[in-house]
Amino acid sequence: MTDTNTQILLRARPVGEPTADDYSIVTTEVPTPGEGEVLLRTKFLSLDPYMRGRMSDAPSYAEPTALGDVMPGATVAEVVESRDPSRSVGDVVLAYGGWQAYSVAPAKHTRRLDPEAAPVSTALGVLGMPGFTAYAGLTQIGKPQPGETVVVAAATGPVGATVGQIAKILGCRAVGIAGGPEKVEHLKELGFDAALDHRAPDFKDQLKAAVPDGIDVYFENVGGHVWNAVLPRLNKFARVPVCGIVAHYNDTAAPEGPDRAPGLMRHVLNKSLLIRGFIQDEFARAHQGTFLTEAAGWLAEGKLRYREDITEGLENAPEAFNRMLRGQNFGKTVIKVS
Amino acid sequence: MTDTNTQILLRARPVGEPTADDYSIVTTEVPTPGEGEVLLRTKFLSLDPYMRGRMSDAPSYAEPTALGDVMPGATVAEVVESRDPSRSVGDVVLAYGGWQAYSVAPAKHTRRLDPEAAPVSTALGVLGMPGFTAYAGLTQIGKPQPGETVVVAAATGPVGATVGQIAKILGCRAVGIAGGPEKVEHLKELGFDAALDHRAPDFKDQLKAAVPDGIDVYFENVGGHVWNAVLPRLNKFARVPVCGIVAHYNDTAAPEGPDRAPGLMRHVLNKSLLIRGFIQDEFARAHQGTFLTEAAGWLAEGKLRYREDITEGLENAPEAFNRMLRGQNFGKTVIKVS
Repeated sequence: MTDTNTQILLRARPVGEPTADDYSIVTTEVPTPGEGEVLLRTKFLSLDPYMRGRMSDAPSYAEPTALGDVMPGATVAEVVESRDPSRSVGDVVLAYGGWQAYSVAPAKHTRRLDPEAAPVSTALGVLGMPGFTAYAGLTQIGKPQPGETVVVAAATGPVGATVGQIAKILGCRAVGIAGGPEKVEHLKELGFDAALDHRAPDFKDQLKAAVPDGIDVYFENVGGHVWNAVLPRLNKFARVPVCGIVAHYNDTAAPEGPDRAPGLMRHVLNKSLLIRGFIQDEFARAHQGTFLTEAAGWLAEGKLRYREDITEGLENAPEAFNRMLRGQNFGKTVIKVS
Repeated sequence: MTDTNTQILLRARPVGEPTADDYSIVTTEVPTPGEGEVLLRTKFLSLDPYMRGRMSDAPSYAEPTALGDVMPGATVAEVVESRDPSRSVGDVVLAYGGWQAYSVAPAKHTRRLDPEAAPVSTALGVLGMPGFTAYAGLTQIGKPQPGETVVVAAATGPVGATVGQIAKILGCRAVGIAGGPEKVEHLKELGFDAALDHRAPDFKDQLKAAVPDGIDVYFENVGGHVWNAVLPRLNKFARVPVCGIVAHYNDTAAPEGPDRAPGLMRHVLNKSLLIRGFIQDEFARAHQGTFLTEAAGWLAEGKLRYREDITEGLENAPEAFNRMLRGQNFGKTVIKVS
């Protein structure tokens, strides 16, 4: 191999929004796979909000990335060298290669993808972790009944768009919230019953009008002022799966008062609410197989659609990552690496 | 009948802590039961935190008491006149007579008590709504496993004391939080593994030391600074049944900042927490029979003990109610009416 590897490392722990100084981009040798391993050339790198948590050393649901380590992330990659009989050169696999052009992984930690079945990048989005997050949170925590109202924010993102479309498949009223008229238009195309722009000055009133029977399931992935507007509209026994609060990932301190926590707990009490945080792993063993089968079927039937926000070039990952945290992406954020 | 009825009516909606001006105490005629009804003379009136919610017209889990109506409340009463074959004069029943000396109720809305089985006032406490609140919230939402740590505040109150003792019966480590050394001492007598005074200046550190393996179930009935201290100690997948936030019932506005709500949601996310509000009614049909059988057995075996805070005289109910909201009661608050 005469090629070189490009890696993006975590150089410093960001304070607030990450800056270029928090990363270092380095050129290294392409690594060599050991017995049972494969060498992978990254085709697509997934950017996801959880990565902001890994950059911090504050307590989170996963260990922080060590300073000097490659930024983590799921990848779709091509096998360029195999030292395991289960994988062949040219196979396209789902891996966890991180922000780099080449990576080495145990073959058993990769999953072979079928490029005929669906575009391979969907393994990072609608058929991947974000899609399964939507499916698991909605069906295992939200448990919507036909005719109930499901509301989701960041609704053009890979989780939100999937939540809303599965809610429709399950016979619910789906209300999507996004930022800006173009995204709102897209939600209508996806079949949401109502689509709202959270930047509208009368957003609260729009939300009230869009949920005449209240809200039975609010799929929380954003936080912030959307959550504050949703809370009073939740019905008795409403369920709130929480898979993210991206509006707060760059917070450096608790926001200014008043303290809304007691009011939140008052809603919990008065309406017998269920609020449940989750990471999709929890449900993977029991439900991921069913999800992949069902979701692939829905994709094929055109009931489940997806949109990708693709940026070319690994070196543009830091900027694309910030755009996503600001909600400026439009669809699943993917870096096309090679 | 030449006797008269004494009633305490809701005169005004309190702002903050209720005052004497929010009530009127009136003397009226003793009411006459109709067909299928009984006339009841109140022996014991239960005072419970939920009543503060009924005095407000803010949205809550129950309709507000109308101005001019008798203050609501569960009662243990003697049948003094019966127009239903199922009840006899002299029967002692559980009813919902409210803050008055006499009341009329459909016989079928009363439950006959056996004075031989347990002191009848326990139907308002350990064998009544508070006891069932503890049982249902702990077993149906908290679902503690043997060896897990269960923490409860207001732990000498009728809900908290029952939560802790049932947790012990289920094989858990029980940690009780109360206000003042006398209550803490009582918790140790009840068999709690650790008992903490939330007024102690080093309460947070005491809590940390008392839960070396973290907290698996926090039974929330208080809110305030106790909740803020508990939150960082909750384990992954911890469960938080919420049956009250008495520390906030007299709040007139959201407390001063910073805004703790995003931090709360961050804990929910990072630790896959379950927070679930509930009112015991939800579980009554499926579980109340089992509860009454089990709890009566535990009482008889001495595994479940209770304490009552009895005030004589209906006219003292408003003051006793305020003492309870301030946490100055010591055990189940009961008014001995006749």
